Amino acid sequence: MDIAFLGLGGMGTAMARNLVEHGHTVVAWNRSPEPAKALSALGVGIGETPAETVKHCEIAITMLADDGAVEAVSLGENGIIAGLAKGATHISMSTISVALSERLAEAHAGQSQNYATAPVFGRPDAAEAGKLFIAVAGEAGVVEKIRPALEAMGQRIFIMGEKPSQANLVKLTGNFLITGVIESLAEAFALTTKGGIETAKVYELLTETLFAAPVYKTYGSIIRDGSFSPPGFKLLLGLKDNRLLQQAGEKLETPLPFAAIIRDRFLAALAHGDGDLDWSAIAKRAVDDAGL
Amino acid sequence: MDIAFLGLGGMGTAMARNLVEHGHTVVAWNRSPEPAKALSALGVGIGETPAETVKHCEIAITMLADDGAVEAVSLGENGIIAGLAKGATHISMSTISVALSERLAEAHAGQSQNYATAPVFGRPDAAEAGKLFIAVAGEAGVVEKIRPALEAMGQRIFIMGEKPSQANLVKLTGNFLITGVIESLAEAFALTTKGGIETAKVYELLTETLFAAPVYKTYGSIIRDGSFSPPGFKLLLGLKDNRLLQQAGEKLETPLPFAAIIRDRFLAALAHGDGDLDWSAIAKRAVDDAGL
Amino acid sequence: MDIAFLGLGGMGTAMARNLVEHGHTVVAWNRSPEPAKALSALGVGIGETPAETVKHCEIAITMLADDGAVEAVSLGENGIIAGLAKGATHISMSTISVALSERLAEAHAGQSQNYATAPVFGRPDAAEAGKLFIAVAGEAGVVEKIRPALEAMGQRIFIMGEKPSQANLVKLTGNFLITGVIESLAEAFALTTKGGIETAKVYELLTETLFAAPVYKTYGSIIRDGSFSPPGFKLLLGLKDNRLLQQAGEKLETPLPFAAIIRDRFLAALAHGDGDLDWSAIAKRAVDDAGL
Amino acid sequence: MDIAFLGLGGMGTAMARNLVEHGHTVVAWNRSPEPAKALSALGVGIGETPAETVKHCEIAITMLADDGAVEAVSLGENGIIAGLAKGATHISMSTISVALSERLAEAHAGQSQNYATAPVFGRPDAAEAGKLFIAVAGEAGVVEKIRPALEAMGQRIFIMGEKPSQANLVKLTGNFLITGVIESLAEAFALTTKGGIETAKVYELLTETLFAAPVYKTYGSIIRDGSFSPPGFKLLLGLKDNRLLQQAGEKLETPLPFAAIIRDRFLAALAHGDGDLDWSAIAKRAVDDAGL
Repeated sequence: MDIAFLGLGGMGTAMARNLVEHGHTVVAWNRSPEPAKALSALGVGIGETPAETVKHCEIAITMLADDGAVEAVSLGENGIIAGLAKGATHISMSTISVALSERLAEAHAGQSQNYATAPVFGRPDAAEAGKLFIAVAGEAGVVEKIRPALEAMGQRIFIMGEKPSQANLVKLTGNFLITGVIESLAEAFALTTKGGIETAKVYELLTETLFAAPVYKTYGSIIRDGSFSPPGFKLLLGLKDNRLLQQAGEKLETPLPFAAIIRDRFLAALAHGDGDLDWSAIAKRAVDDAGL
Repeated sequence: MDIAFLGLGGMGTAMARNLVEHGHTVVAWNRSPEPAKALSALGVGIGETPAETVKHCEIAITMLADDGAVEAVSLGENGIIAGLAKGATHISMSTISVALSERLAEAHAGQSQNYATAPVFGRPDAAEAGKLFIAVAGEAGVVEKIRPALEAMGQRIFIMGEKPSQANLVKLTGNFLITGVIESLAEAFALTTKGGIETAKVYELLTETLFAAPVYKTYGSIIRDGSFSPPGFKLLLGLKDNRLLQQAGEKLETPLPFAAIIRDRFLAALAHGDGDLDWSAIAKRAVDDAGL
Repeated sequence: MDIAFLGLGGMGTAMARNLVEHGHTVVAWNRSPEPAKALSALGVGIGETPAETVKHCEIAITMLADDGAVEAVSLGENGIIAGLAKGATHISMSTISVALSERLAEAHAGQSQNYATAPVFGRPDAAEAGKLFIAVAGEAGVVEKIRPALEAMGQRIFIMGEKPSQANLVKLTGNFLITGVIESLAEAFALTTKGGIETAKVYELLTETLFAAPVYKTYGSIIRDGSFSPPGFKLLLGLKDNRLLQQAGEKLETPLPFAAIIRDRFLAALAHGDGDLDWSAIAKRAVDDAGL
Repeated sequence: MDIAFLGLGGMGTAMARNLVEHGHTVVAWNRSPEPAKALSALGVGIGETPAETVKHCEIAITMLADDGAVEAVSLGENGIIAGLAKGATHISMSTISVALSERLAEAHAGQSQNYATAPVFGRPDAAEAGKLFIAVAGEAGVVEKIRPALEAMGQRIFIMGEKPSQANLVKLTGNFLITGVIESLAEAFALTTKGGIETAKVYELLTETLFAAPVYKTYGSIIRDGSFSPPGFKLLLGLKDNRLLQQAGEKLETPLPFAAIIRDRFLAALAHGDGDLDWSAIAKRAVDDAGL
């Protein structure tokens, strides 16, 4: 398929590369041009503006930093909306707000363009290996059309519903659950440490029995070792996703008490200068509260 | 080995049976005599009082309902302390408080008896299959002595430390982490339900990707289906363990904000008449808060 | 002084009337014209647009519903910024966000106009009696200039600082403290009610001893009597102010755990259809949690 | 009346003195004898044991440190129960648990003795001036009998109900509300401080308007000035009362989310070595969370 890929950060570059390797024709755009040039050796074309980049493509994928970037690239001057052909599909793969996703759905519908969302679970190494998990939402016919592109990037696709913003909500919910694991482990380790027990032993017991899941292993070992830098996912971005979750919670009139505690952990972490560490560094707050 | 087993509930009966099947000689005691009689066909002896039951044994195991029962059976008239031989070992396998465990450690030391703790993770089916996970704490020499007995009941033994109450603390911490999963999932499902997404789809995405752990599968499916009855572990007992955890947290001067939220969920669940449901029925509170 | 008054809700109308009664010349503007006409009998002029209304005034006061209204009236086409004379002062008296207040400060500075903030504490009856408490922030010279106008509306003026948004932050903080009182009393009454004690007795004890403050009397009696309708201040507006508070908390990297609990109370109240009741109706949540 | 007074701390000594000054005949007992001797100049008799002290009195008042002390003095060997005449009344004025109060009620009833509770609100200076506020609970006839004694110690008596433990519950609830004020102010001041506003200005605005109550003035000024030492009421005792409140909440199946947050503040304060400061020193936690 002819695919435009907008947003070449660590994740996006790996995903675009997988599209090429699966035989798709890719034209890329990035705010700063260097990452696109790095892909040109693979035969990837380089677009000048988002509108120009997506013009002849069946699919335009955005994988950008945040709401602001997606809004500018999609709805701004020379944006995707302005350039995408009728009947072509914008797949929004970034972690964005439910509210922006609903605005995009409406804007694309107004131009007879398709819109689907496909946020991903997985760190950069999973992106490189094409092993992402992808939550998809959109009209069934649209999802079927874009499936080959998604399968080039992910090991498995989960369909959440027909309304595009539903996959955004699920993505934010998944990130919320990860922060729940981080805070739970932080409190647990603070308590057992004060009880004189080596964290390594508690970690081993937990992650080899009931909690034998990737998320406990990944974050349990980071917290155990205090290896919050370099960050896999920055704390500041974690706060952003928590904010988007709570905005969705407000719109849907759903209290989320765990999310509220985690928000305060993020703020206290920022106040202590930890914004550039891995988001699991909120674990330092439980340790600090316990006077350790 | 000659082993006394005190406390023949669903878990205890299965564990005693496994001891017999591994060639140990077991004499059993239970407050009501019926469960002990049911084991006599296997060649299990029946004791009259705890003291008399443990008299000629190298090991006395308690697997009782709560602190009150363990205190009465251990420290009461005709209790284990009164009957156990010098050099023999009491293994406390119940989920009890750190404080009681410390009292028992002191009491046994005063009688030149050994004391170790070995609380278990696993539901009755795991107990029957001898597949429990066992957290052990006690002096290294004592733990080595009792290892054959533990290996007859569990698939794996995790040594937490030399101070017996440390395994009790880890057990309470493990149960806390389970309740953290329950509350996290409850909030997540409440939110996605209000967003119009089928819980079954969210469940599948989570439990087949980052959260592919037994605890998410078990409780996620119970919450998804609302199958809180019959209970695997009663809500009232869940509140009890939360209370013991928070008492330990107070003693160790460690704030546990997630545990505090879960406590309030337990109380609200009781106030709504759900005390006899499975402890995961605290999930109904998040649903109720969201007006569903 | 020549004063433009923009925003004639219940509060604004009473405040404008007090300005007239203190001898000021007032020209008014409101989105819908009726409330302005009602004031014309007092000699109040009526403006066509915000810009035109403020044109010949030394002071322009905004007392509008929310950020959106203040933004439109101030920064929009034919807004205050466009019409206000150099050296004249815009006093923002609405409860608005710190962020918008900072934008307004910058915009006015760019036009050589003055900007001060003067949010008020008090319900409509206090506004009518000219008995509001007013928190003021702005450059000292500007505050002195506008003092006569403020004194016509309030019984006392409290100067918070030289940066206009500081009074907005204090106003949001004051509203937060009120919600803290509401939630505290709600929990207290739920507990004593379950203990079989009449709420009227607890109310009397509290409000005639340590808690003998207007805020405890006002909200304690509303909660005691369940008289949440008609609302003195709508629950939906309470949620809005909580949101603005938390946005300020995020910007200032300050965790506010009580505010987080109150936010969830607001959301649960909305989910139960109580958005149009008085904001103290969040007290129904504590009652509901206790199964009453 | 003939009154036995047991427990001569700072509060008890002042209260006993007021009884004497109102013409009552007082015999006193204290665990350490010195404080009783200091009262003998006023004509106060000194008892050897609680039982002997109360033997010829119509009223026995306990004003002791905690549940343990009240239990020992009341139910222990040579305790009040053992010595009090049939028809005489034990007034428990300490802050004790609802559960112990219920045990005392039962024990006294079994001996045909009366039992009432009368916990007090007020610091030592109010006790000396006879200006305490007293919450009373007990059978109406009993309360009438003891009224003259109570009026000698307090400026006002509030009757809570016929069940003695109800006044204990109200006392714990009152202390909970005070901690709610402390935490609210702590969060408020942390936020406004980060917003660059002097706390003294915020304090003045609040305590001279909506929050013009003794409790806001007292604790607001302590927090503003950081004058947590010497303590008016020790943080460790504050934690104890919070624990008793939450035990009551558990028994009455009432979630208390604000109380839960305050509990964690107490624990974090202990972990930071602040147990001997005034209980309002939990305010340091909000400050610390904000990175100040």
